[in-house]
Amino acid sequence: MSFQKLDDLGRKLEALEHALSILGADEATHMAVGGGEKRAEAMSNLAGLYHAQSTAPEIADWIEAAKKEVESEDQKLALGEFQKTYINATCLPTEFVERKTAATMRSEQLWRELRAKNDWDSFLPALEGVVALVREEAQLRADALKLAPYDALMEQYDPGNRTADLDLVFGDLKSFLTGFVPEALAAQEQRLAKRPRKVLSGPYPIEKQRELGLAAMRAVGFDFTHGSLAVSHHPFCGGVPTDVRMTTRYRTDEFLSSLMGVLHETGHALYEQGLPKAWSHWPLGKARGMGIHESQSLFVEMQLSRSPEFWEFTLPLVHLHLGEDAIPGWEITDILSEVNHVERGYIRVDADEVTYPLHVILRYELEQDLVNGKLEASQIPEAWDAKMTEYLGLSTLADPKDGPMQDVHWPGGAFGYFPSYTLGAMIAAQQWAALEKVQPSVREDIRKGDFTGVNQWRSDNIWTQGSRWSTPDLITRATGEPLNADFFKAHLKKRYLA
Amino acid sequence: MSFQKLDDLGRKLEALEHALSILGADEATHMAVGGGEKRAEAMSNLAGLYHAQSTAPEIADWIEAAKKEVESEDQKLALGEFQKTYINATCLPTEFVERKTAATMRSEQLWRELRAKNDWDSFLPALEGVVALVREEAQLRADALKLAPYDALMEQYDPGNRTADLDLVFGDLKSFLTGFVPEALAAQEQRLAKRPRKVLSGPYPIEKQRELGLAAMRAVGFDFTHGSLAVSHHPFCGGVPTDVRMTTRYRTDEFLSSLMGVLHETGHALYEQGLPKAWSHWPLGKARGMGIHESQSLFVEMQLSRSPEFWEFTLPLVHLHLGEDAIPGWEITDILSEVNHVERGYIRVDADEVTYPLHVILRYELEQDLVNGKLEASQIPEAWDAKMTEYLGLSTLADPKDGPMQDVHWPGGAFGYFPSYTLGAMIAAQQWAALEKVQPSVREDIRKGDFTGVNQWRSDNIWTQGSRWSTPDLITRATGEPLNADFFKAHLKKRYLA
Repeated sequence: MSFQKLDDLGRKLEALEHALSILGADEATHMAVGGGEKRAEAMSNLAGLYHAQSTAPEIADWIEAAKKEVESEDQKLALGEFQKTYINATCLPTEFVERKTAATMRSEQLWRELRAKNDWDSFLPALEGVVALVREEAQLRADALKLAPYDALMEQYDPGNRTADLDLVFGDLKSFLTGFVPEALAAQEQRLAKRPRKVLSGPYPIEKQRELGLAAMRAVGFDFTHGSLAVSHHPFCGGVPTDVRMTTRYRTDEFLSSLMGVLHETGHALYEQGLPKAWSHWPLGKARGMGIHESQSLFVEMQLSRSPEFWEFTLPLVHLHLGEDAIPGWEITDILSEVNHVERGYIRVDADEVTYPLHVILRYELEQDLVNGKLEASQIPEAWDAKMTEYLGLSTLADPKDGPMQDVHWPGGAFGYFPSYTLGAMIAAQQWAALEKVQPSVREDIRKGDFTGVNQWRSDNIWTQGSRWSTPDLITRATGEPLNADFFKAHLKKRYLA
Repeated sequence: MSFQKLDDLGRKLEALEHALSILGADEATHMAVGGGEKRAEAMSNLAGLYHAQSTAPEIADWIEAAKKEVESEDQKLALGEFQKTYINATCLPTEFVERKTAATMRSEQLWRELRAKNDWDSFLPALEGVVALVREEAQLRADALKLAPYDALMEQYDPGNRTADLDLVFGDLKSFLTGFVPEALAAQEQRLAKRPRKVLSGPYPIEKQRELGLAAMRAVGFDFTHGSLAVSHHPFCGGVPTDVRMTTRYRTDEFLSSLMGVLHETGHALYEQGLPKAWSHWPLGKARGMGIHESQSLFVEMQLSRSPEFWEFTLPLVHLHLGEDAIPGWEITDILSEVNHVERGYIRVDADEVTYPLHVILRYELEQDLVNGKLEASQIPEAWDAKMTEYLGLSTLADPKDGPMQDVHWPGGAFGYFPSYTLGAMIAAQQWAALEKVQPSVREDIRKGDFTGVNQWRSDNIWTQGSRWSTPDLITRATGEPLNADFFKAHLKKRYLA
């Protein structure tokens, strides 16, 4: 049985993924400082084994033969994902992969060094090399997938997403936001004139913050029999679905950034913990893609955790874990004012939910032009500055490290990934609207800290679906209509203009 | 170049070993409780990959071809170890390995269940099956290695050890100990009559015990840039040489069992950390075997850490970390009286260093007879009881769970391993004597907490040697003579009769 061979292969590959995931999480949390070199060597060798196993030529034959065997709908879908994964893994010649890996590793190293020195000019040649390789990759993938080059790159992160659709949705959102940002800032100014921002009066001991974070994770549904929380320099959600490794980091002068980070990663974790267990060794059983994953983290972080209802049950948790006088005089409105503060800034990762999409759309527009040859790497600083000035009124020409040198994605050769962030925000808002329609009491539930209904809806509509549907199909099936920026726009208006 | 192919293969296998080691340590320390099933599946699949990679038929050709290529002494030794490892991995047919794995897994599970019920009779059929398989294995290994069956089993754990030599040394030690145990007990009684045993007055907080353990590890030379200490139910030393994962467990009513356990595992850790780094992907670069490994842990635990000199610098550490009045009125002599207390007992793992070898020799004698067909599994209870009565004056007939059902080794099919424990104790004593001969000031150094000289000698003579020599050759090279029980006997006399 050829399908059985694919099934067996899936178990081998799952074991290697398991090792790579746990080793990766371990590296950031528990590895001795001198263990890095051997760890990198081991992981690179395991990745090589994974590549060799997953691209063996006989797999193509198994897939073809299995097409005549599969009967159930699940098996058909599973086989389709096996095939897509195989094409994705084999459409680049080994020679090309080696060339790109070497170039992007070197470019990332250079970027780390030169970004600290704010030195765009010295970095440019490396980035030009990466752009040339990405154009080559986009064409190779486009040929294999019969897609346009940039669409073929996006296909790796969010299968089914096409610029033809995204251009419309992002265009809509962009024109909304350029007007909305000043409105939201003006409304915020008025609110703060009446009730100024408070300042947190730490220190907040790490052990107590940890207890608060664990309580929040438990409340929103994290399963501690299948996961844990540790500390790392950069917070992440890794591990495997049966043992999700979440991390956070702590400052002692305030506790909100760690708490909101924990809630964000919990959103990712719930998705992983909720995936269909019987298919965990099939591509069909994995999370759908980056945009949907981000929708799950932003659903928890933005839709749930920055709402007034959420803080009705969370403020007492803060008192319980940090102490009755940890935040003297703070009311829910003060917390919301803090976590929902809007500010135009240079740095994407520091941006609030209102300005964040503009950072993403800027990159989405530029990287399409870069891939399609309409823009050269040398022209990025001017193009970046023009868009930042237009969208956010900020000039970046003097400071490339806070402009086009701020992200690791391009130096690392990851083009087509950026849209996922804002897709996630929009999908989350659309999911919330769909959920509220069928569960009118959901805000009441959240007020009481009861996420059963919320999670049941997400489990039914997202988590247990694994990779059954393309990203757009999953959105439509879950929410009843295709991606539509109106839900996100309505969410922003409600939160920031009220 | 065929040697180069072996070198490349070594790197792949090292990556899989790395993954298995870290996943194993992680499972006991940081894994979520519900992650066990998938972890077991992943590790079993990785072990399967390891087996497939390490037993590929072409490796035999590479080894033969490489024999004509190698020139340096190191390469010749490396090739020899590649070949031994390959024979060891391929001398059992896959069909047999699968049969044995299934049988011993089942037998181990049964043992866990039936040991708790003290039910030998129900366990016997499973053990009979294991013994039959072990006889088959011993014969297969004997044919491949041209050794006697039991020697062929020992060869996996301590290459070069032969019953012809061990019988003499163990026989010598046994006849010494049967007389010495009563003498040591009488001397102990006299000492305790003059100065009775004190009782520790906890509680000793875990965090403080941890700090004490870390200080002790640091003092004897543990490199914290290449390792760490965590907590697990069963203490172990795992991980990889560049990132050694040590564990301990804590009781709060006393601190000495954790501290002595930490020192034992630190002995294992120093060996791993001191192995030759450039050969870490060759069999030649691994630790020599179980007996030598145990000699390194017992060197630290028994030779160093239970000596009066050691406690001259460690008692102040106890005060520093546990508090000035943590052990009120305790002097060095009280600590030594506690950690060197001798008592006849049923359980090997609870035994002191005087009675421990008798537990091992009993098993060594019985398992030889089992392998050679002179004893059947059904006869074990009587044979065990007879020897326990003869060696330690204790009858075990009524209580098989504290008799022949106490160890996992036989239910797990590991025959030939037991001698390593007592070999380790003897080798450690012999090493100490050799070291003291060339470093007459070593006791003075230890008094000051200075282990530089001790560790330099061990690094030169043991750690950096990797697997260059067979176990007996390594002993002779390091200490100037073959294994000789006199050193261990002299050590016991000095410690327990003085």
